[in-house]
Amino acid sequence: MEQLAIIKIGGQVIDQPEALDLFLKDFANIPGKKILVHGGGKLATTVAEAMGISQQMIDGRRITDAETLKVVTMVYAGYINKNLVAALQGKGCNAIGITGADVNAILAEKRVHPSVDFGFVGDIRSVNVDFFQSLLQAGLSIVMAPITHDQQGQLLNTNADTIAQELAKALSSQYEVDLIYCFEKAGVLRDVQDINSLIPTINPAGFEILKAQQIVSAGMLPKLENAFAAVHAGVKKVTIGNYAELQLLVQQRAGTTITHE
Amino acid sequence: MEQLAIIKIGGQVIDQPEALDLFLKDFANIPGKKILVHGGGKLATTVAEAMGISQQMIDGRRITDAETLKVVTMVYAGYINKNLVAALQGKGCNAIGITGADVNAILAEKRVHPSVDFGFVGDIRSVNVDFFQSLLQAGLSIVMAPITHDQQGQLLNTNADTIAQELAKALSSQYEVDLIYCFEKAGVLRDVQDINSLIPTINPAGFEILKAQQIVSAGMLPKLENAFAAVHAGVKKVTIGNYAELQLLVQQRAGTTITHE
Repeated sequence: MEQLAIIKIGGQVIDQPEALDLFLKDFANIPGKKILVHGGGKLATTVAEAMGISQQMIDGRRITDAETLKVVTMVYAGYINKNLVAALQGKGCNAIGITGADVNAILAEKRVHPSVDFGFVGDIRSVNVDFFQSLLQAGLSIVMAPITHDQQGQLLNTNADTIAQELAKALSSQYEVDLIYCFEKAGVLRDVQDINSLIPTINPAGFEILKAQQIVSAGMLPKLENAFAAVHAGVKKVTIGNYAELQLLVQQRAGTTITHE
Repeated sequence: MEQLAIIKIGGQVIDQPEALDLFLKDFANIPGKKILVHGGGKLATTVAEAMGISQQMIDGRRITDAETLKVVTMVYAGYINKNLVAALQGKGCNAIGITGADVNAILAEKRVHPSVDFGFVGDIRSVNVDFFQSLLQAGLSIVMAPITHDQQGQLLNTNADTIAQELAKALSSQYEVDLIYCFEKAGVLRDVQDINSLIPTINPAGFEILKAQQIVSAGMLPKLENAFAAVHAGVKKVTIGNYAELQLLVQQRAGTTITHE
């Protein structure tokens, strides 16, 4: 099977123009098929504040009321997505920016929760594999905004990490998928104070040991659990590492790689 | 040649949810290949005001400084474009929303003017006909936001009427193009006070007579001149009419149609 790199970035890099420029150069230089999934950045908060929209959080999750959905649609699907596409085009990477609504790329349903109304938050139901495949086979690099829809006319806000993961799982039927989460840290560290304590690879047995030794931090645990869920669902490997090292992450020469065996 | 309908709407319909819903139903029901080009609406002004960005106008044209470009990218490429796509998907129309930056669909250059700095305004240099054709041949309906780029990483704000016209001209090499401008009026009227005085068709000879008789209003004159430029450049016909009559406009049973002969 052909290889496909799915790379997720968040606000840490989106909010730093110089770091973002270097990251996009690296992304443009990745040979072969690739998808960039982006989250938001500070602009969504800035715009919401300017418009007098207060952000509600429940259990660390942003509640997406109608006004907040308007802001994230503007910022994620408009400003960030199209600036990423234009920047990549400027670097010779033939990019197309999409949301889950375009060609029904990602169908979601409004989250139903027994006690919390998350508002216009979408849980993914299906990925239009044929559409992604047709874009990739046409030689296009896809820039994916974290906005989905319910195919009834309603846009929905969906977590970018989740989108990256669901795309990776769905596209593993057609490609050997390398899922890379870029953030501000070097990867999973044995000692969070020591950047030389990077753990290069973790397999399921190793994960059990790390958990038993309480080496994995509370913030890293859900990321790793999601990564193992992805590799169990067919994703070839998941790498977690620093956005400044994308070239090395792609070559599995940096970051922490989660594998099935 | 196969037919292609290119339909342009502006803020008059975008800002009215019920009218927009009816319009999109009609658009979804147009058989065959179609492109919807949209302008902005009041939201761009609302967001700009909320963010403390003052709108500058010179000769009726909006000056696009960096902050205004941010707003129009958010509102046009994000909010309006993706809500139109989601609404069309909800009506069974398989839509994809794009800007000129996506796959270098529309390449523009920053306007150079001897005395006025229009800011980040793009004049169209070329249309990626192959890309539009590949989407249309895949059965997709295209929703086009009035944002282009210079392929050097810079997004540019481009007038939606001009985008519709340049798309129509470029795609006339592959399709028999029907360019339809939807606005709040019924078409070109002999007497602006009398809606029964609609002129159903105007050819070049008839246009000269209307101009000599000073029947064409100052606001309508540039629209008609652009329409004639389009038909002279190969567009099969240009129709100007009311967005509430889209079904009839497509069948040339309403509005004013500009033809070559």
